[in-house]
Amino acid sequence: MTMSEPTTGPRHLISVKEIDGARAHRFFDLAEALRALPAEECAGLLARRTVATAFYQPSTRTRIAFEAAAAKLGAARVGFADVKTTRAGDFYQESLEDVVRNLGSLVDALVLRHFESGAAARAAAVSPVPVVNAGDGYNEHPSQALGDVWTMHQLLGGVEGARIGLLGNPSIRSLHSIGFVLAALSPAEVVFLPAPGTEVPEDTRKLFEANGVRWSVAEHVADLLAGCDLVETIGTRHPDHNLAHDRQSVPEQTPERFRIDAALLRRVGREVPILHPGPRTDEIDTDVDALPVAQYLPQVTSGMWMKAAMLAHVLLSDDRLPL
Amino acid sequence: MTMSEPTTGPRHLISVKEIDGARAHRFFDLAEALRALPAEECAGLLARRTVATAFYQPSTRTRIAFEAAAAKLGAARVGFADVKTTRAGDFYQESLEDVVRNLGSLVDALVLRHFESGAAARAAAVSPVPVVNAGDGYNEHPSQALGDVWTMHQLLGGVEGARIGLLGNPSIRSLHSIGFVLAALSPAEVVFLPAPGTEVPEDTRKLFEANGVRWSVAEHVADLLAGCDLVETIGTRHPDHNLAHDRQSVPEQTPERFRIDAALLRRVGREVPILHPGPRTDEIDTDVDALPVAQYLPQVTSGMWMKAAMLAHVLLSDDRLPL
Amino acid sequence: MTMSEPTTGPRHLISVKEIDGARAHRFFDLAEALRALPAEECAGLLARRTVATAFYQPSTRTRIAFEAAAAKLGAARVGFADVKTTRAGDFYQESLEDVVRNLGSLVDALVLRHFESGAAARAAAVSPVPVVNAGDGYNEHPSQALGDVWTMHQLLGGVEGARIGLLGNPSIRSLHSIGFVLAALSPAEVVFLPAPGTEVPEDTRKLFEANGVRWSVAEHVADLLAGCDLVETIGTRHPDHNLAHDRQSVPEQTPERFRIDAALLRRVGREVPILHPGPRTDEIDTDVDALPVAQYLPQVTSGMWMKAAMLAHVLLSDDRLPL
Repeated sequence: MTMSEPTTGPRHLISVKEIDGARAHRFFDLAEALRALPAEECAGLLARRTVATAFYQPSTRTRIAFEAAAAKLGAARVGFADVKTTRAGDFYQESLEDVVRNLGSLVDALVLRHFESGAAARAAAVSPVPVVNAGDGYNEHPSQALGDVWTMHQLLGGVEGARIGLLGNPSIRSLHSIGFVLAALSPAEVVFLPAPGTEVPEDTRKLFEANGVRWSVAEHVADLLAGCDLVETIGTRHPDHNLAHDRQSVPEQTPERFRIDAALLRRVGREVPILHPGPRTDEIDTDVDALPVAQYLPQVTSGMWMKAAMLAHVLLSDDRLPL
Repeated sequence: MTMSEPTTGPRHLISVKEIDGARAHRFFDLAEALRALPAEECAGLLARRTVATAFYQPSTRTRIAFEAAAAKLGAARVGFADVKTTRAGDFYQESLEDVVRNLGSLVDALVLRHFESGAAARAAAVSPVPVVNAGDGYNEHPSQALGDVWTMHQLLGGVEGARIGLLGNPSIRSLHSIGFVLAALSPAEVVFLPAPGTEVPEDTRKLFEANGVRWSVAEHVADLLAGCDLVETIGTRHPDHNLAHDRQSVPEQTPERFRIDAALLRRVGREVPILHPGPRTDEIDTDVDALPVAQYLPQVTSGMWMKAAMLAHVLLSDDRLPL
Repeated sequence: MTMSEPTTGPRHLISVKEIDGARAHRFFDLAEALRALPAEECAGLLARRTVATAFYQPSTRTRIAFEAAAAKLGAARVGFADVKTTRAGDFYQESLEDVVRNLGSLVDALVLRHFESGAAARAAAVSPVPVVNAGDGYNEHPSQALGDVWTMHQLLGGVEGARIGLLGNPSIRSLHSIGFVLAALSPAEVVFLPAPGTEVPEDTRKLFEANGVRWSVAEHVADLLAGCDLVETIGTRHPDHNLAHDRQSVPEQTPERFRIDAALLRRVGREVPILHPGPRTDEIDTDVDALPVAQYLPQVTSGMWMKAAMLAHVLLSDDRLPL
């Protein structure tokens, strides 16, 4: 499993596909322990370490949360938010492998976001230091998934036995990885509401089936809200990650059956916590923001502590962890 | 008043419009106290805090001075200097409110620069953490104003009773905010030399009149230099903040009656300190730089300590401040 | 000499042209001493100092290595990787001198990369704080040169008496500065393999002759590998630094006589360490990367420690240095 301890070489965090339940809970516990630690003690854990963020794609939450998490742990932050400021984005088109090996010769860990599926695994294959996947193309987004499922765990007192609704293209890396983490636990059911023209991908289906996790497909967000204990939506409007400018191909508005607003919530009449990995467009109306069910901001803070847990995990031996 | 203590919620620094003289002096004193503090003690004030700079517009001085100020206070810095590296600048066009709420879920304070007037107030309305306005459109630039008026205060032994010349469009956010801070003190007179086609805006006029502060309008920079105790110029060449590329609409040279050079200073024959918020184009000739009246670099350093005071003010309770 | 101690004013590091052997060795020793220092002690050297990186050109290794080096020494990092995020890159086109004077009013040292030859000297002429040249146009790249020659020194047990091969345009700033540092030591010979249409520049030739250092020109990389103790290549494909987009003028492939691959190394049959300042395109085949002669990654790590030595040198008095 890609999150298992390697016998030699750095620990990486590339995929959550083969994570098991015990391991998922260990990450939840570590994130919780870091959050509970006195700030001064926390800031000693990665003192005098340096973490590089190498972001080939735009990011608000993920990059800044990793940097804030590194700061909480006392690590220095370096890196780039715009590949055009580097030799990989200018004339030389320096290869991902070379960038990773070079940065890995300068810092203690790399947090990588890239527009190509598989980029994180390619990076891990050559990096002398741990690589943390902060999103690679249409593949995975482990920090989002572990943080989000930990948020679900906190809100529901455990996702075991719960019915979780996931709205959006199930192949988008956030939902893709969330599905994998949920599959490792024992939810009563995962209910997908796929974006138009998308479906639950084969690897997700196979993993659910292998793990004996029930799943189904809904037709309307009202069904998710009526039947689930928690709903996470990523919306239905996304450009192709592989194209720079693809606004034209994306519908201007989210169709009504994928939209959440206060009126719908009143109609459904249940208090169902709502998560969103961000960025939000029109799939959650801003009139939801003030309601107690809007949990997407606590989700961001939990996500930062999960990122801290991931950095601590890849950089510290187990006996150094506050567990 | 927007700088008063809220009874609940975070302290913000959005506008200096309603600041009073006691409060302005308190900022001067706090900046002075921080500058005088042993470096090690200073670095303990915001240890283990994180400050985000969210800059939607280019900046050299302001962003880097806020980051240097945060470093002096021991705080970690995260954020963005280019909105295109974030989800607010890519396909998703994430709203300002969402960016602010998300960042506010990750850090302890936000320093925001935005091209829209009112953006800082919109941010403060939704932010869970203090928002410091680092310039919003044609509205305000509080850190520039407090730092610049403190610089005047240091150079003149107080601006009370002094005649201050302000050269440039009085609606440009720097001059706009400087006017408000001056109005809170008791200068003998503020003499404007407005850029062609601009005038002293109504809110400035009203505030001066309400506070009993005399003001007038001059015709030539020589009059400012001859009649004032200090002159701050922002020049007369500015693109429209609301347009990305507006070079064409801007005159290629500053007209002679708005230009300061060494020959003019010799002609006037008085030692009048000259400030400039930067960036400078041709409104101050470089032959002025070596003269003792050129105070625009000490102004930058003072500006950093004022920014430190602003960050300390919004993040620390009064009993933690070195006052 | 530009690296000598000024009697007044800040110490800068602009050029290695007039460095002498004792001074080069002092930098090697300082870099070694910093690397050997306990991390906690190292992090105390520049505690509460702030270093700004001002990069007008793209960079991966150099900028991030300087920032990682500053972090090792405990200094805070601020600055810009993209001039378009500053007032020098927007409407105002703020002058280099003004940027330098302003940043120098905010931080303790400046690390500058610029596309114009001579920019670093222009910066040093006006800066109130030390300026470290991180590459200026076709002129010099002192940190690359000192780090690379130190790497040679480590690999060869001293470059004195060694034959060093340098492949690429000898006017490219990396090779240009490496030549100057080598000229200060006593290699047996420096063998150039200039890129097509380039030659050893006059200042390099004169310095070699003045210092009594033998040099020659080879025709094929196999000759370098057969006759030298170490080869550094920068390849032959480079855009004009002065042009933004110049891909057309650059050949699509490195001609065979400038290319290194595993087959060639087997054919030559000697273990010749290979360095590369990066970024690499096709001048070293990736099949070389796993071979023991590939020393370009240890070179990157050594480069970071040399950058730390340079920052310590410009910011600390000699009695504070761990020598």
